[in-house]
Amino acid sequence: MRQSQLFPKTRKEAPKDATSVNHKLLVRAGFIDQLMAGSWTLLPLGWRVITKINQIIREEINAVGGQEMLMPLLHPKEIWSETGRWDKADEIMYKLKDARGKEYVLSFTHEEIVMDLLRKNITSYQDLPVCVYHFSTKFRHELRAKSGILRGREFMMKDLYSAHTTEKGLTDYYEKVKGAYSKIFKRLGFNFRVVEASGGVFTDKHTHEFQVLNANGEDVIYICDSCDFAQNKEIFKGKVGESCPRCKKGKISEEAKTVEVGNIFPLGTWYAERMRMFFTDRDGGKKPVWFGSYGIGPTRVMGTWVEVSHDQSGIIWNREISPFDIHLIELPGVKNTEKIYEDLKAAGIDVLWDDRDVPAGQKFADSDLIGIPVRLVVSERNGDKIEWKERFSNTSKLLTLNEIINSFGK
Amino acid sequence: MRQSQLFPKTRKEAPKDATSVNHKLLVRAGFIDQLMAGSWTLLPLGWRVITKINQIIREEINAVGGQEMLMPLLHPKEIWSETGRWDKADEIMYKLKDARGKEYVLSFTHEEIVMDLLRKNITSYQDLPVCVYHFSTKFRHELRAKSGILRGREFMMKDLYSAHTTEKGLTDYYEKVKGAYSKIFKRLGFNFRVVEASGGVFTDKHTHEFQVLNANGEDVIYICDSCDFAQNKEIFKGKVGESCPRCKKGKISEEAKTVEVGNIFPLGTWYAERMRMFFTDRDGGKKPVWFGSYGIGPTRVMGTWVEVSHDQSGIIWNREISPFDIHLIELPGVKNTEKIYEDLKAAGIDVLWDDRDVPAGQKFADSDLIGIPVRLVVSERNGDKIEWKERFSNTSKLLTLNEIINSFGK
Repeated sequence: MRQSQLFPKTRKEAPKDATSVNHKLLVRAGFIDQLMAGSWTLLPLGWRVITKINQIIREEINAVGGQEMLMPLLHPKEIWSETGRWDKADEIMYKLKDARGKEYVLSFTHEEIVMDLLRKNITSYQDLPVCVYHFSTKFRHELRAKSGILRGREFMMKDLYSAHTTEKGLTDYYEKVKGAYSKIFKRLGFNFRVVEASGGVFTDKHTHEFQVLNANGEDVIYICDSCDFAQNKEIFKGKVGESCPRCKKGKISEEAKTVEVGNIFPLGTWYAERMRMFFTDRDGGKKPVWFGSYGIGPTRVMGTWVEVSHDQSGIIWNREISPFDIHLIELPGVKNTEKIYEDLKAAGIDVLWDDRDVPAGQKFADSDLIGIPVRLVVSERNGDKIEWKERFSNTSKLLTLNEIINSFGK
Repeated sequence: MRQSQLFPKTRKEAPKDATSVNHKLLVRAGFIDQLMAGSWTLLPLGWRVITKINQIIREEINAVGGQEMLMPLLHPKEIWSETGRWDKADEIMYKLKDARGKEYVLSFTHEEIVMDLLRKNITSYQDLPVCVYHFSTKFRHELRAKSGILRGREFMMKDLYSAHTTEKGLTDYYEKVKGAYSKIFKRLGFNFRVVEASGGVFTDKHTHEFQVLNANGEDVIYICDSCDFAQNKEIFKGKVGESCPRCKKGKISEEAKTVEVGNIFPLGTWYAERMRMFFTDRDGGKKPVWFGSYGIGPTRVMGTWVEVSHDQSGIIWNREISPFDIHLIELPGVKNTEKIYEDLKAAGIDVLWDDRDVPAGQKFADSDLIGIPVRLVVSERNGDKIEWKERFSNTSKLLTLNEIINSFGK
């Protein structure tokens, strides 16, 4: 797309109340705009990143049998009362009444809604398992909405829910999703750990969090320097320097700061028993389904990426989630950029072309700020060759248009 | 996908409270599920249809320069008070207060929110025009939520907003979007009319509705039998049988029932003046932007398609928005269906394979109910050939797998 048409333009100054890196850079570069505390518009650049993040998640969740759908956001009080969460989760819920006095809550999660859907549609073991997910909005009344897009009051979530006939069915699927999540965060490019956390009221077993290592993170985890053991602060009972309780060889070497980007919960039969989601088993008996839920916050993923991948000049996207493949910049006096732009597009490459009538310095500064991984500079000096510079590198090389197109292999 | 894994299974009976065709068939076939009055889960089959509808809309809106983004759903009272709509639209708004007493409204439309976004990011004529859109949820407290998915309290909307420096800029863009909408509804396969409607408080000119002809529709329009003149009941002042006010040759021949699937509004400077969205023009003067808004309801589009395209046995999708390209059915005793399924998938064709262990009669009934346009039957009787039957036709033919794959040309 032509940068002269892109909404909005970049900003020189970060918002005064911005304290976190993702807040400052994503606003300055035009990826997000704050409507009110904890509430953000995903602007065209930001929406492109989220679309790519969501597609990676979608592919891996589909690969473990997830079926995509979309559930409502406005929920009736009655369903949330069945598990007692209408009262228990009161603090973070946005509740409302309509003109007739009927009470609702905005979606802060969807377990009860999925359970209601299941009990209307599942009667027999033959109807199970069911693995369904959606990308949708969550509303949580956080007392302090902070850290830019990392902790919002309204944000996007991919939530997957599974229902199986047996505990083993749930456990096996839980491990499959754990594998899918690891693939997702690897494809996204993160340095992350799969971290054991408390099972809460639902299970004696551990649940798992996916934590990205980041010096500015809010969470703290303990990691073995030899095996993949990792626990969060809440459940870790040992000390740094002790030998690892799992492999015995390694030492708990690190008290690392992290940002949580995903979590998975084996919820057992707690929900099914309270909401009476019983199926008829092979033997004719009525049994509760074994339930699990699995979340990733795409908007939080975007913010976390910026926290771990930036420099003084701006954001540094990777190819997988960059809003564009290439940032094409023409220097003053050059006339054939449009042809290059069209050729790149025809080859299936997503190009942001800085066609604005502004000084070269401003183009370079905006390019560094926006952070597209490959920058091409067309100048008179280089003749038919085009300068290729990667965002994370200080060196550049001269390539022909064909060499550039071939390197994308689209 | 394998039908044995598809959630949920079909139902023999429609819900007791269902009166409209789209409600009965979409629920029975497993496309939608009602959470409460006017609120629906889009189940995996329904979500596939919506995804295809949205992609058609996206392509045509991008082609007229629309930039996709995503705006929040929970809006602060202050912004809606600036135009007076906090009070004026009270009847259909869902309002709420948080624990601190701050007041909000759920998105029933987004004009004020877009205007707030613009005034934070637009200063000069050089920053205009801006054309932005999103697919998101709308909440409207309809007194009677009825007609299945046609009139919900929570539903999906694609809303596009444009801001230009001059009235001519707005008018020209309005005509471009009118053209884009016509392309969209043509690609969707509808028999529709572009209908003049009242401009309301915003403009002396007409606005336009996109109305699909349907005997069960709620709206009434008047059509010329010779030219493309069409007006809604609200503004048409003539009588059926009179000569057409536009072409003079034709007669107003029809009082047709219709369903509205889209509308476009040239809103002028009404919003900009009230919300002080002034830009600096070339001459240094401060001027309000010329604003327009343009809506299509994808969930309503899905429901409307079912209203106009079904028979006694079920839904009849067209290729463009069908949840799958092919419904593959194996008769008892056949063993090579999996190979055919994999070959079709490898050719890029989306296949629903009925691999269930149920009688052939049930497979055919479910296939007719779900309504995928092409049904392939694999039986021992036909040897290497496969029976190809289109949903809208009573005849079938025998084809080889290669002939089938080639006919999709993917």
